[in-house]
Amino acid sequence: MPFLYNRSIHFADTDAAGVVYFANMLAICHEAYEEALAAAGIDLGSFFRDSAVMVPIVASEASYLRPLAAGDKVSVSVAPARLGEDSFEIRFEISKVGPRGGKTAVRARTEHVCIDAKSRARLALPPGIAGWILAC
Amino acid sequence: MPFLYNRSIHFADTDAAGVVYFANMLAICHEAYEEALAAAGIDLGSFFRDSAVMVPIVASEASYLRPLAAGDKVSVSVAPARLGEDSFEIRFEISKVGPRGGKTAVRARTEHVCIDAKSRARLALPPGIAGWILAC
Amino acid sequence: MPFLYNRSIHFADTDAAGVVYFANMLAICHEAYEEALAAAGIDLGSFFRDSAVMVPIVASEASYLRPLAAGDKVSVSVAPARLGEDSFEIRFEISKVGPRGGKTAVRARTEHVCIDAKSRARLALPPGIAGWILAC
Amino acid sequence: MPFLYNRSIHFADTDAAGVVYFANMLAICHEAYEEALAAAGIDLGSFFRDSAVMVPIVASEASYLRPLAAGDKVSVSVAPARLGEDSFEIRFEISKVGPRGGKTAVRARTEHVCIDAKSRARLALPPGIAGWILAC
Repeated sequence: MPFLYNRSIHFADTDAAGVVYFANMLAICHEAYEEALAAAGIDLGSFFRDSAVMVPIVASEASYLRPLAAGDKVSVSVAPARLGEDSFEIRFEISKVGPRGGKTAVRARTEHVCIDAKSRARLALPPGIAGWILAC
Repeated sequence: MPFLYNRSIHFADTDAAGVVYFANMLAICHEAYEEALAAAGIDLGSFFRDSAVMVPIVASEASYLRPLAAGDKVSVSVAPARLGEDSFEIRFEISKVGPRGGKTAVRARTEHVCIDAKSRARLALPPGIAGWILAC
Repeated sequence: MPFLYNRSIHFADTDAAGVVYFANMLAICHEAYEEALAAAGIDLGSFFRDSAVMVPIVASEASYLRPLAAGDKVSVSVAPARLGEDSFEIRFEISKVGPRGGKTAVRARTEHVCIDAKSRARLALPPGIAGWILAC
Repeated sequence: MPFLYNRSIHFADTDAAGVVYFANMLAICHEAYEEALAAAGIDLGSFFRDSAVMVPIVASEASYLRPLAAGDKVSVSVAPARLGEDSFEIRFEISKVGPRGGKTAVRARTEHVCIDAKSRARLALPPGIAGWILAC
């Protein structure tokens, strides 16, 4: 079952068009990914700064379907899926919650590959991440 | 009593020094201000986009006492005080919560002035804001 | 011929992994798009805030091929192409310049649709944008 | 003589009020600081990531005097001054350039302290930084 992350749209997320800046939508998705990892008991501090193993994002795509404005309450669903020994994808949907909510505002996807921080050779996913994906 | 806002430090808040980028500490304070207004029943959408009246920040100051890293849980206290007919200040403290928390990481202050959006002449604070400050 | 935009990687672009945060790569592409429009004589102030016509980004995709760090000098190529009466895409490539540069660090694509700001009905591209695309 | 850094205001710098978000003004100042160091021959990559010595910002203050909008061209002056063996301040002024420019939009100040990355004990400024301040 996808993890759900609730959040308000902040003023800093928006731009002069009055709505969330497109690239900030991806940052909101990454926030939801971090919260999903934390909820699964994975320590973010060591996960993102472990000097030996890294899991960078190698690709992203997004469809921006409806604008979001400061003060809007949104829910972000986070659905990871294994792609191979050393990689996985996450599918995200951001929807406005509340009286006029429900419809998807953004649909996004990120692709992650596990590598050795020094050689940048591909490595099998760490057990914590592999377990989180299995459990979703 | 100051409003308290709880939040995790996200990866997007940090920089290559491994901790929160100094200017993002002020953005976290502004987020807490927005949440305080929302909790007081003030509609952020219209507050920040009302075409006739604006309440821009005219000054800020901050002391960065302790670094914060991705995954840290913080609490932000928001204490507004009236400065005059048309202005107020907010004092913020960001503290890490949890086993090694408690000490203040950032102490900040912002100053806000109410103006007419067109003429930029100073205006008395709107009742919603004035009431929020009184109630704190 | 694609427009070229040169820029340094700033500290604010990076995160605790020591390199540019993935979503900020798209923000750097958008910066290059703005500079391309400005170089073509299009006034950004009115373009992005014109109340009647808007040209929002409806989709983005990116491949993050090589990391970039604070202090790196990069060149961003901006190649727009018409998709229809009311839409266009832009292809971006971010490459490091200098002694160890040349290889593409990021390849990205954004899709833009022209709409009526009120009804959100699709509109033909404004002449300024259409002319910019033709001239590239 | 203060270092001058020229830059356009980008869409990502703005918020739904249509002008630059207050905290982003400080990020623009930091960009100018980075460009001043680079122009003085200081390698940013090693300066900001040197594992033994760090020069964090311990305080900031800013007055936001005039709004800036996307497309505005600004000039940022960077004037550092030694405060002690282990610390310095930088005074910044952001001004709009061009036909209606000239007046200061933002006046800011940051305070920097050199510390040992592990013990966080104060250290004398590194020669590169000390030399840059002397030469300004």
